[in-house]
Amino acid sequence: MQSNEPGNAERTQPADPARDGLQTPCLLLDAAKVRANVDRMRAHLTGLGVAFRPHLKTAKSLDVARIAMTAPEGPAMVSTLREAEYFAEGGVRDMIYGVGIAPAKLDRVAAIRARGVDLAVILDSLEQADAVAAQARAAGDALPVLIEVDADGHRSGVAPDDTATLVAIGRRLTEGGAALRGVLLHAGDSYALSDPAALADAAEAERRAAVRAADALRGAGLPCPVVSIGSTPTARFARDLTGVTEVRAGVFMFGDLYQAGTGAVAVADIALSVLATVIGHQRAKGWIIVDAGWMALSRDRGTAKQAVDQGYGVVCDLAGQAYPDLLVADANQEHGIVALRRGSGARLPDLPVGSRIRILPNHACATGAQHECYHVLDEAGRVSGVWPRINGW
Amino acid sequence: MQSNEPGNAERTQPADPARDGLQTPCLLLDAAKVRANVDRMRAHLTGLGVAFRPHLKTAKSLDVARIAMTAPEGPAMVSTLREAEYFAEGGVRDMIYGVGIAPAKLDRVAAIRARGVDLAVILDSLEQADAVAAQARAAGDALPVLIEVDADGHRSGVAPDDTATLVAIGRRLTEGGAALRGVLLHAGDSYALSDPAALADAAEAERRAAVRAADALRGAGLPCPVVSIGSTPTARFARDLTGVTEVRAGVFMFGDLYQAGTGAVAVADIALSVLATVIGHQRAKGWIIVDAGWMALSRDRGTAKQAVDQGYGVVCDLAGQAYPDLLVADANQEHGIVALRRGSGARLPDLPVGSRIRILPNHACATGAQHECYHVLDEAGRVSGVWPRINGW
Repeated sequence: MQSNEPGNAERTQPADPARDGLQTPCLLLDAAKVRANVDRMRAHLTGLGVAFRPHLKTAKSLDVARIAMTAPEGPAMVSTLREAEYFAEGGVRDMIYGVGIAPAKLDRVAAIRARGVDLAVILDSLEQADAVAAQARAAGDALPVLIEVDADGHRSGVAPDDTATLVAIGRRLTEGGAALRGVLLHAGDSYALSDPAALADAAEAERRAAVRAADALRGAGLPCPVVSIGSTPTARFARDLTGVTEVRAGVFMFGDLYQAGTGAVAVADIALSVLATVIGHQRAKGWIIVDAGWMALSRDRGTAKQAVDQGYGVVCDLAGQAYPDLLVADANQEHGIVALRRGSGARLPDLPVGSRIRILPNHACATGAQHECYHVLDEAGRVSGVWPRINGW
Repeated sequence: MQSNEPGNAERTQPADPARDGLQTPCLLLDAAKVRANVDRMRAHLTGLGVAFRPHLKTAKSLDVARIAMTAPEGPAMVSTLREAEYFAEGGVRDMIYGVGIAPAKLDRVAAIRARGVDLAVILDSLEQADAVAAQARAAGDALPVLIEVDADGHRSGVAPDDTATLVAIGRRLTEGGAALRGVLLHAGDSYALSDPAALADAAEAERRAAVRAADALRGAGLPCPVVSIGSTPTARFARDLTGVTEVRAGVFMFGDLYQAGTGAVAVADIALSVLATVIGHQRAKGWIIVDAGWMALSRDRGTAKQAVDQGYGVVCDLAGQAYPDLLVADANQEHGIVALRRGSGARLPDLPVGSRIRILPNHACATGAQHECYHVLDEAGRVSGVWPRINGW
């Protein structure tokens, strides 16, 4: 784009000694944007009459969880048992572990539940149901289970019209001593969409599959109190969620360039960025070298498949305003190569060695995981604190 | 490939209660393979008459460093100041920090040097030289510097024929109170090659550029005791290193599918793998779902650009033997989708829920960074201990 945005001279770079003292690369998190993103999602889901179970896999931070959750005890969704342990330690009492349960993980699940946490698991096979039922009997604890249902062929789950398998799993669980809590779906293929109408259709397809599976269980006399669906794009574009009891979503809290490419968030709402320092130039090539490579940004190149390829990230000034057409065009482990988008008529900004920039990520889940904490920006854009985060399993 | 490899029935899966007790996903590291990879590189470089400065950015582990280094004190190469601090704590005394120095990092460099560590920095501009010289004078410490020289247009560095800039930087450093220790190059473009002759040519080009830059400095009466080059492919394929004093390489210690694609390592020599558990199936699609997604494997898809695309990794049995044509075909955050290579005539192995597999990574640096430790395999293939590793900056 040829842009009317201000050049370097006019850019207001907010003074902030705390930020200037940070060692780069590191994560900045705009807390006000997180709160606004959460408020928007909550209002949308409240309007649709469903509960909200925030997915904590993106943030992996108790501070962020407390903004996202409707109560300090949850509900919440986690992607690893380490998250479950960490959030349990922080007082969260209602969680679903959202990866099909491996039998060898049931001891850890039992230990978390023994601390008074209502941790549920998901599964999509009779073998898993048998293992869970055996664990429930051994522990004397009716472990709650949601049957994973395949919304759109994305990865796991029983087909929503496979009533025989759904009912067989449900019976194995309830007769074996576990508790059948409901069905859970994730419309993962929605991430490949960008048209609002197509996304609304994907949300409706996810809803229909969920209701169909729930009806199949109930029709066989089995309980199905929870009908859980979720993905940031379908959560955002759902118009009617009749029959659904709760929606899960996570990445929307931070937003990222990929979600912006789907239309689920606005670039201006992206709360996460990587602070980096200019360490050199290759002026003949129009390159600015910065100290954020793929180790700090992640290897995620999700936008390469979208209409607008954002390289390894969009480059912004310290106020968070994007420089016209300036991207991290390539990345080595600890080096980012900043350059104008190919074919752009924009002017390369003058950023001497030691200048600092902020980089908006392709994928907040992946970029966040490369770091150990968030440096939190307050309403004035100043670094006001540190929020730790976890990684690992 | 249509293969004569043994099917499941004939596969010997070594019994190992320690391994079976591991929570997945996690890293396995074959210590004997690391030692053999290091021995091979050392012998090659000894034959070429150059010192070896192992790059510790892949392993980020003191246990691995002690295998790789020629002495407990080093020399070694690091990619972050956190690595420098960690290895200094572990007794390493000779390090180069291999990312162009940002002025705001010089206080940390000084603190490490104040502990008696000979930590050198690299740079490629007069601005950086001035900042380093100012720091050297302020600290009363002749901070050693290598001028980064651009071997092949890959990223940073002064052009090897830009004598004026090389000499100007050298003079600013020496006259300003810093110590000019030499020149440093990295033939990063060699990673895109796979032909041994082309790789030998790349190594020779790297050597020639290094010698040319060193001669330029010496011709101006400046010191250049160290002539440092390095990359795993050029280190492996170099035939003559006249004029070079040391070679750096790191990823070769572990090897990975990308390096195997360049010919720099053999698949059988890859020491790093991710242990994962089968958590489900989509039989109609030929999918096996495992609990290692991109969070455990990294988003690196480097082999997508090579002659053989290995997806998110090659799937092996517990003995480390690859199943014919079996790949992690796709990955979500905590899910891997295992499937046969497209068009393969091989048979999908029978891997029930709870079965365990090992996944060879595309890129050892990226996969390693997703984890906090290595579970170490002994000569018999049994898990014999844990080696911690670090991440962050």
